[in-house]
Amino acid sequence: MSTELGDLAARLRAFAEARDWGQFHTPKNLAMALAGEVGELVAEFQWLRPDEDLDPEARARVVAELGDVTGYLVRLADVLGVDLLAAAHAKLDQSEARYDVSTYRGSARKAPPLPPG
Amino acid sequence: MSTELGDLAARLRAFAEARDWGQFHTPKNLAMALAGEVGELVAEFQWLRPDEDLDPEARARVVAELGDVTGYLVRLADVLGVDLLAAAHAKLDQSEARYDVSTYRGSARKAPPLPPG
Amino acid sequence: MSTELGDLAARLRAFAEARDWGQFHTPKNLAMALAGEVGELVAEFQWLRPDEDLDPEARARVVAELGDVTGYLVRLADVLGVDLLAAAHAKLDQSEARYDVSTYRGSARKAPPLPPG
Amino acid sequence: MSTELGDLAARLRAFAEARDWGQFHTPKNLAMALAGEVGELVAEFQWLRPDEDLDPEARARVVAELGDVTGYLVRLADVLGVDLLAAAHAKLDQSEARYDVSTYRGSARKAPPLPPG
Repeated sequence: MSTELGDLAARLRAFAEARDWGQFHTPKNLAMALAGEVGELVAEFQWLRPDEDLDPEARARVVAELGDVTGYLVRLADVLGVDLLAAAHAKLDQSEARYDVSTYRGSARKAPPLPPG
Repeated sequence: MSTELGDLAARLRAFAEARDWGQFHTPKNLAMALAGEVGELVAEFQWLRPDEDLDPEARARVVAELGDVTGYLVRLADVLGVDLLAAAHAKLDQSEARYDVSTYRGSARKAPPLPPG
Repeated sequence: MSTELGDLAARLRAFAEARDWGQFHTPKNLAMALAGEVGELVAEFQWLRPDEDLDPEARARVVAELGDVTGYLVRLADVLGVDLLAAAHAKLDQSEARYDVSTYRGSARKAPPLPPG
Repeated sequence: MSTELGDLAARLRAFAEARDWGQFHTPKNLAMALAGEVGELVAEFQWLRPDEDLDPEARARVVAELGDVTGYLVRLADVLGVDLLAAAHAKLDQSEARYDVSTYRGSARKAPPLPPG
């Protein structure tokens, strides 16, 4: 894990251990917690029109929810022993090979089921 | 954004720009993509008993899905201009203040609605 | 539960019992399965522009996913002993009281956090 | 659509039309709203141990959230013109053919990726 993500993981681990919450932090439970936070995040955008931005209150909630999502994701990866950055770069390697620029330029529809980020 | 997360964000941005996919990468759409990937992640754990670990094939899928989740999360934060590490540490500051060790030690149920990571 | 939903619940129950899958069908696990299927459903819409409809292949997948979502939702409610129609009508009673027509007409933004269906 | 689900769909449609909310109720937005509600539902179960039941307050929240999920699911199906019961029974037909009783009895792991409900 990277230094910065590793520092966050270490802080989350200490937080859980001080409260004896490691017993709750199984991969299954943490995946559920992550899903719950992502549900809250999605809800902030659900009625937004394409030409609309988040208002300041909604944006503040989104930042807080991104913090929650990041926290649970990093904690889950730490419990599983997975390097998130390595996993993300490996997927991006695959995506660069799969979605060649000339074929997919400007089209999301040619790339079933989804164009990766 | 951190160096390591900043590097990943820059690579994702270049990937999207080369394919002219920035038009699809609105915050709303990226939040949906994140939710879709988290749904796949949750599905890997859904029938697991508490005493069970992921088998090697499931673990490999989980690593790949964690890579997808990380990619969409970092891309979403980049589009919104949000520092994920700062947001996560800010939430953890709040959690440390809210869930004092003596009250919450060993109990998830006293902490409505959820004990943070 | 209604006759039609009750018939579906009974068929799902018999399906699970014949395979001895009741042991997996805890409320927790079924909620996760529901979340996984909803993630797949959301993914079908994520890159869609406001002026776009689903193409025929995507529509067929959406119908199948709506079938999965309905199945897990009805199974979860059956295991919990919850009447979905009564629960939905009760929430709609509340929404009709909360979102009076003259105040909320034409505006989703006035109704934090979300205007109900 | 069934009589009972059809009645709920009609009530939801009238609710939306009275507030001119049809403009927000695109399939994409309703799928997001559904995902948000399912996220809240999952969060209720995330720290629950296998031998634990929901306490009465949590159960009341779960019933309310099941009402929200049902409402958005029925509204989404209505907007798309999909018969949820027919879709669910069609998927169950497939599952009965795919997961024969003698092979899958008692095992969720033999059935990748997931044993349906």
